[in-house]
Amino acid sequence: MDGTALIYSHGLLHTVHAKTSHGLIRGSDRYRILGAVDPANAGRDAGEVLDGRRRDLPVFASLQEAAAQGCRPDFLIIGIASAGGRLDPEWMPAIREALQAGISVVCGMHEFLSDQPELAALAAASGARLVDVRKPKPRTELHFWTGEILSISTPVIALLGTDCAIGKRTAARMLTEACRAAGIRSEMIFTGQTGWMQGGRYGFVLDSTPNDFVSGELEHAIVSCCREQQPDVIFLEGQAALRNPSGPCGSEYLVSGGARHAILVHAPARTYYKGWEHLDLRIPPVSSEIELIRRYGAEVIGLALNTQKLDWAAAEHWQAQLQSELGLPVALPVEAGVEPLVEAVRALLSAR
Amino acid sequence: MDGTALIYSHGLLHTVHAKTSHGLIRGSDRYRILGAVDPANAGRDAGEVLDGRRRDLPVFASLQEAAAQGCRPDFLIIGIASAGGRLDPEWMPAIREALQAGISVVCGMHEFLSDQPELAALAAASGARLVDVRKPKPRTELHFWTGEILSISTPVIALLGTDCAIGKRTAARMLTEACRAAGIRSEMIFTGQTGWMQGGRYGFVLDSTPNDFVSGELEHAIVSCCREQQPDVIFLEGQAALRNPSGPCGSEYLVSGGARHAILVHAPARTYYKGWEHLDLRIPPVSSEIELIRRYGAEVIGLALNTQKLDWAAAEHWQAQLQSELGLPVALPVEAGVEPLVEAVRALLSAR
Repeated sequence: MDGTALIYSHGLLHTVHAKTSHGLIRGSDRYRILGAVDPANAGRDAGEVLDGRRRDLPVFASLQEAAAQGCRPDFLIIGIASAGGRLDPEWMPAIREALQAGISVVCGMHEFLSDQPELAALAAASGARLVDVRKPKPRTELHFWTGEILSISTPVIALLGTDCAIGKRTAARMLTEACRAAGIRSEMIFTGQTGWMQGGRYGFVLDSTPNDFVSGELEHAIVSCCREQQPDVIFLEGQAALRNPSGPCGSEYLVSGGARHAILVHAPARTYYKGWEHLDLRIPPVSSEIELIRRYGAEVIGLALNTQKLDWAAAEHWQAQLQSELGLPVALPVEAGVEPLVEAVRALLSAR
Repeated sequence: MDGTALIYSHGLLHTVHAKTSHGLIRGSDRYRILGAVDPANAGRDAGEVLDGRRRDLPVFASLQEAAAQGCRPDFLIIGIASAGGRLDPEWMPAIREALQAGISVVCGMHEFLSDQPELAALAAASGARLVDVRKPKPRTELHFWTGEILSISTPVIALLGTDCAIGKRTAARMLTEACRAAGIRSEMIFTGQTGWMQGGRYGFVLDSTPNDFVSGELEHAIVSCCREQQPDVIFLEGQAALRNPSGPCGSEYLVSGGARHAILVHAPARTYYKGWEHLDLRIPPVSSEIELIRRYGAEVIGLALNTQKLDWAAAEHWQAQLQSELGLPVALPVEAGVEPLVEAVRALLSAR
């Protein structure tokens, strides 16, 4: 572990903008999460804010309040997204306060803390570190695709989604843990900054990688994981969606990452690509996404539903309907776990 | 124009490794090409080496020999590819010689000239410049996708290919020129380093762009071109291939770049993805590629054939066969021009 951490979510902890915070509340092997700093939710429990389940993670109004209550973390992690991955000027007071107190700041934006002379000076003065998770590796450390993936016999399952911010990483993590609990040696390849913050050992930050190296970095992560851990199955954290116009992604997993199987994460109540409602950009039907994935040579073996804006009855209705319509197991991960998908994975492994 | 240039191709001018050289021999609006430096082909004409057509571009054995014959360019352009986009140590003597003589060096590798202290010192001493075409823009200058592309009514046609190094850029350039000659106001968006070297005004180097910005840079190039030039049609230079495992590319053009139509470049004699013959990685059938493109919402309106390893009879046979099999116009650009595709573009425009 790198140390203890508070999550900074700038009053947005209860919103989808805080998906990095949500991932860290669900669990991290890199940082021991102590709680959150979020004035709008101060006094509550961060787990309760997320999904109603207490996790003994207090939410403080400020770093100062946390310190007054004896909570002095090693790190402050920026747990919110901004438009364009920019550093929001409104976060600066909290970042400065942390650095002045010697607390290192972890940030997954495209704009880097270490490029801000003022922050670099504050960090240097107090001995705090600036951790820019999306800073790309130097080119000499990046990998090209070699074809080594073809020698891997471990089944690779991609967690793809019909949209961004829909639960691909969460489903991948839950599946990895549930499969392990069921005696299946499972590993997850992270592909985003939150996955890194959660302590993923194998993976890379896909969206900040120069395009030419995406397939090679993906291959390298999978091959290294297989060689070192010899798992029974590997889950790949997907990014975006195959046809999301703001940045399509997914075919790399199927053609370069050797994923012959996929699990599709879908939100039945979401009609438009998130953030593009005003442009009438509609998410295609699930069946058409499954067919597109099939054209890339991979088979969808199950669905995971994001139940955002659905009550329990509606969620169960969609689960039953999609199950019968597609003839595939459909899980409600957050509400009811991923058991149906663990069964699908087990069936896949025993059929080999 | 930036100035005069000699192309450096390190004895490989007659091979597919020199595809950047080949593009520059075909034409550049950025550099006035004076000839090439290539010991293996010294004394010949660079155009003749390329495709048998003289272009009055002498090939010299060295920069020294060029200078002895009165040829003193402003730039030396590295016109060959290397494994992994590395700077090949074997090129260094020629690069040093250029810099010492005050000749600037242009390079499209992933490894940068300006990162080599020795070269930077030589350039500084002589006043020569180091032009690293693949050096990414600072993040603050990169664009995210905004959806502005949806307001563009100009037809956008993507030049996709069934493989890398198959003639997508050449076909795009020929089509742009042929359409202009036919009275159709045409623009081309470049997406690679050679396109930049050829003087493309709109475009970006896709493969060195951080993945998150690819769709936005593409959109920005198209929208800027439409606003400023108001063309009748836009051709997009494709990269790689939708299912090339070493780096799939193409869906960005269809889902983010607003391309509703595509022209597919195909090499009938190529069975395997170039460079992956030893791994038995086969190129899928053309019909399956057309269907995959259709799944992304775009229609293939014609084919351009790369006739590598085909004699004239075989080329004509493939042209006729694919034409009848697919019901699409099929051009042999290098041998017979792109007229059948200009007709397809004209039909598309008049049907609107």
